[in-house]
Amino acid sequence: MYRAPVEDISFALNEIAGLRTAIDQGVFPELSADLVDAILAEAGRFAGDEVAPLAKVGDTQGARLDNAEVTTPDGWKDLYARWCEGGWNALSAPQEFGGQGLPQMLGVAALEMWNAGSMAFALGPTLTMGAVDALEKHASHELQQLYLPKLVSGEWMGTMNLTEPQAGSDLAALRARAEPAGDGTYRVFGQKIYITYGEHDFTDNIVHLVLARLPDAPAGTRGISLFLVPKFLPDADGNPGARNDVFCASIEHKLGIHASPTCTMIYGDGKFGDAPGAIGWLIGEENKGLACMFTMMNNARLAVGMQGVAIAEAAWQKAHAYAADRRQGKAPGYTGEGMAPIVLHPDVQRNLLTMKALTAAARAIAYSCAHATDMARAMNGDDARHWQDRANLLTPVAKAFATDIGVDVASIGVQVHGGMGFIEETGAAVLYRDARIAPIYEGTNGIQAIDLVTRKLPLAGGEHVHGFIAELRADAEAVRASNLPAFGRSAEKIAAAIDDLEAATRFMQDGLASGRTQDALAGATPYLRLFALAASAAMLGRGAVASKDADRIALCRFHAENLVGETAALKERVMEGAESLAQAAKALG
Amino acid sequence: MYRAPVEDISFALNEIAGLRTAIDQGVFPELSADLVDAILAEAGRFAGDEVAPLAKVGDTQGARLDNAEVTTPDGWKDLYARWCEGGWNALSAPQEFGGQGLPQMLGVAALEMWNAGSMAFALGPTLTMGAVDALEKHASHELQQLYLPKLVSGEWMGTMNLTEPQAGSDLAALRARAEPAGDGTYRVFGQKIYITYGEHDFTDNIVHLVLARLPDAPAGTRGISLFLVPKFLPDADGNPGARNDVFCASIEHKLGIHASPTCTMIYGDGKFGDAPGAIGWLIGEENKGLACMFTMMNNARLAVGMQGVAIAEAAWQKAHAYAADRRQGKAPGYTGEGMAPIVLHPDVQRNLLTMKALTAAARAIAYSCAHATDMARAMNGDDARHWQDRANLLTPVAKAFATDIGVDVASIGVQVHGGMGFIEETGAAVLYRDARIAPIYEGTNGIQAIDLVTRKLPLAGGEHVHGFIAELRADAEAVRASNLPAFGRSAEKIAAAIDDLEAATRFMQDGLASGRTQDALAGATPYLRLFALAASAAMLGRGAVASKDADRIALCRFHAENLVGETAALKERVMEGAESLAQAAKALG
Repeated sequence: MYRAPVEDISFALNEIAGLRTAIDQGVFPELSADLVDAILAEAGRFAGDEVAPLAKVGDTQGARLDNAEVTTPDGWKDLYARWCEGGWNALSAPQEFGGQGLPQMLGVAALEMWNAGSMAFALGPTLTMGAVDALEKHASHELQQLYLPKLVSGEWMGTMNLTEPQAGSDLAALRARAEPAGDGTYRVFGQKIYITYGEHDFTDNIVHLVLARLPDAPAGTRGISLFLVPKFLPDADGNPGARNDVFCASIEHKLGIHASPTCTMIYGDGKFGDAPGAIGWLIGEENKGLACMFTMMNNARLAVGMQGVAIAEAAWQKAHAYAADRRQGKAPGYTGEGMAPIVLHPDVQRNLLTMKALTAAARAIAYSCAHATDMARAMNGDDARHWQDRANLLTPVAKAFATDIGVDVASIGVQVHGGMGFIEETGAAVLYRDARIAPIYEGTNGIQAIDLVTRKLPLAGGEHVHGFIAELRADAEAVRASNLPAFGRSAEKIAAAIDDLEAATRFMQDGLASGRTQDALAGATPYLRLFALAASAAMLGRGAVASKDADRIALCRFHAENLVGETAALKERVMEGAESLAQAAKALG
Repeated sequence: MYRAPVEDISFALNEIAGLRTAIDQGVFPELSADLVDAILAEAGRFAGDEVAPLAKVGDTQGARLDNAEVTTPDGWKDLYARWCEGGWNALSAPQEFGGQGLPQMLGVAALEMWNAGSMAFALGPTLTMGAVDALEKHASHELQQLYLPKLVSGEWMGTMNLTEPQAGSDLAALRARAEPAGDGTYRVFGQKIYITYGEHDFTDNIVHLVLARLPDAPAGTRGISLFLVPKFLPDADGNPGARNDVFCASIEHKLGIHASPTCTMIYGDGKFGDAPGAIGWLIGEENKGLACMFTMMNNARLAVGMQGVAIAEAAWQKAHAYAADRRQGKAPGYTGEGMAPIVLHPDVQRNLLTMKALTAAARAIAYSCAHATDMARAMNGDDARHWQDRANLLTPVAKAFATDIGVDVASIGVQVHGGMGFIEETGAAVLYRDARIAPIYEGTNGIQAIDLVTRKLPLAGGEHVHGFIAELRADAEAVRASNLPAFGRSAEKIAAAIDDLEAATRFMQDGLASGRTQDALAGATPYLRLFALAASAAMLGRGAVASKDADRIALCRFHAENLVGETAALKERVMEGAESLAQAAKALG
């Protein structure tokens, strides 16, 4: 059973991402190291003791649809209520609307723990927090007063309605439409698919944020507006009143996250209400809906990255516990009775350490990204811009790398269990199934890589990324200067990876500047992985130097000497792979 | 829907593995190129038209257990009957017992197609063929006459009973026991788990091959004997008679291959028969059961490798078809109406070509392994020994690499489908689920890697592998000497990979010779992957040079320039990774 790795998380926040220094410098006056640890410990307790025990029933029962009503698994509604009572929904929500206003880092850390307890559970509140963000930044005062307190407390939940059958990665193809009703409201019509927690029994009301087109809106992404469409229209007291003309027509039968209802939502077909059309309110300006949605998406991308970290952590813990218990064969040096625990077999150790190192690597990047977001909010002027650039740079890396390794680590976890891993009751397979959605939703990892290369490398005139690389170099140098023999050849390996990153980065920037877009697109995915390996190698070195802890040094070294060497080949793929790709692609038709 | 890639398979057999040359030289007098192609085409038709359409019902219904009887999914019993009627069960079985006696290569090629149609279906007959092998080589004349004709025709099916709860990878821990009954038969007692097709409704009888210990047998693997235990004892006419004291107590709820019943079998608890104990017959000599089982296991390992190739091929076909159909966004150079097919996006092309190249790479190794087995049987003396060494060398590589890439390629296949990939109805997710067992069963891939390093590198005094490497060098040289610009830098990349393989091989051999076993065990898995990448790069080059086909050259180049570069880092992991692994493993407890 999952136990929250509070110490590892605190370490990543404080010693790698920079929270301790920031607290010491007074950047977050409301925080202290003790408060941070207390919150982490309490969140960890809830995740391990309350959320994790309900993961299995969630997977086996799944969400069920009957007559447009979704029933969640046994005990889940109560779990959600206890979770709200604990104030967890409000952790990093604005204080003005009843939230605790804590830095995003703590929200993200808690999110890692909820997701490790049950990804299908944590996903719902993640969407609500996205809705809170969007409303806080873009909604009218009246809408904020009416909806935000309830969304912050968790009394109501929120959803994001983007995708349509013909419009997935390409939102320009959206067809849902909204017509002004003449009274300040709109009537929304259309079909949305893949709507997470689009319908459920957790709350009395559900607040849908829906992208749709106004009449005569420009084609493409510049003609999309954002609307708030509640399931029940609030009455004069703000309580759920008349049913709005929106309902869940079906839920998907999915590979994983079975308890999370993935809904097809139908707006405005006349099933409810006295006139056709779901009543909605405009959020932000007309035709600027995509900008509002991007507010949510950046945070949502990091949140999905946390799912990758969470699944990897849960898989690692489960595999490690199994390997310590399961006995097979003889192991080098084992002198005990009978068969040796398989954790003593070098090949099993290699699997376990790969899981552990990749989890730590993804966590380091993700928390660095969260820290940058918090710093951007806490600072002003150029400092704020610098940190916002940093958050923007790291967001696609955190999302894609963490979710890729989530799949890889869950797969290794199944392998460590041998035949038991393939049996559903063991609980290793469900992580492998759940993990697989994270590289897909909130922008596929291919799209994250393209975002990194085409939108993030140009930040600050192309210089921000080089400032980041210079910081990584300082980490490698600190490892070298520590003169600790336990680091082995870590410093040299980390430095070599950073050289590869710098060369590949210059290649990408030069390519984009000289119009070789196709080459940049072809190499984007290997570039993102190279970026993540080099950055995480330096970050693990930074933490290990700070702590001087033997285990953290050893893990840094294992990562640097066993996993990071791939950067040389990745650099070649980035810089030389496009021609052969284009040549071979001719056969694809 | 899956269409058998008959042309690619024929190409791998003839131009890469060497079948064409062998036929030209008269090694297989019963074969001609036309006959081979005719058999492949007919097997491909059956796999695509008959097997594949029943895969979905197999996954959704699964096998069901009721009162010790297993019911297979709707239509599966009839599919099995048609499959036997077509003579497919007998393809490479001995002619003496009604088989067609064709070389194993054709059996393996057909197996790829059945598995791509439905892995859960193809798995059953694979076990029967293993039983045929074991009985043909080790059973008494009487047992052969009684059982082999029915197993060859498919009228009865066979099973392999090895695993017990405490004895998985380590068969030395087996506890099942057999007592001589005094009449030449034995009474078998014990519990076996993970017995594939241990119970089902396909056939009137099921023939279990069971590992058990005789009274006073030596401890460990030298005290294990092999027994034949039929579900129904044949009567005087050889028809199923009295029920034997063996039954299926439960079936597993698995991640994938739902239609394949994975049974817990109970022997000798008195549920059936007049005296406790399942009646069995000894196969081979007392206490030599493991040697008999290894006869089956070598072939079974290659057969499982074919599952990896098969799943990869099925995933590639499905993803390619989806990418050609699905339209999203703008693609470089696309000038058609509306959104571009996603197959035109470079990042999607990279995913698809990675799938295609890895599938071709695994297929090349697997068919080379099958060819070596056939050559060993067809030749005599030193030639036979040489080819048997080659088969033994390539078997763990074929098993582990093909099943690893089966998982990877199925995962990429889900990714190419975007959100649709996570929906079970699409059919991409089931490949990701089914694929995951193949790296585990028939010896985990970690065990394959250890087998490669500790048992196969020493073959022929350590020289066989260097002969193999010399052949790979000739392939790289042929690519260079072809002077075809379309190969790009393939020759250089392939040669570099072979250099890495040679260095890592010498390191492993030197390490074992000087007692550094722990280092060899620590590096076994990266070594196997390095071996497979270098070998497959050379093999794809061999085929491309032979064909001079633009698409095959382009795929060879994509593989060499984009996927094979990993060998440099793998070599480092093999030669330098053990120390950091051992250091970090201290924290594992």
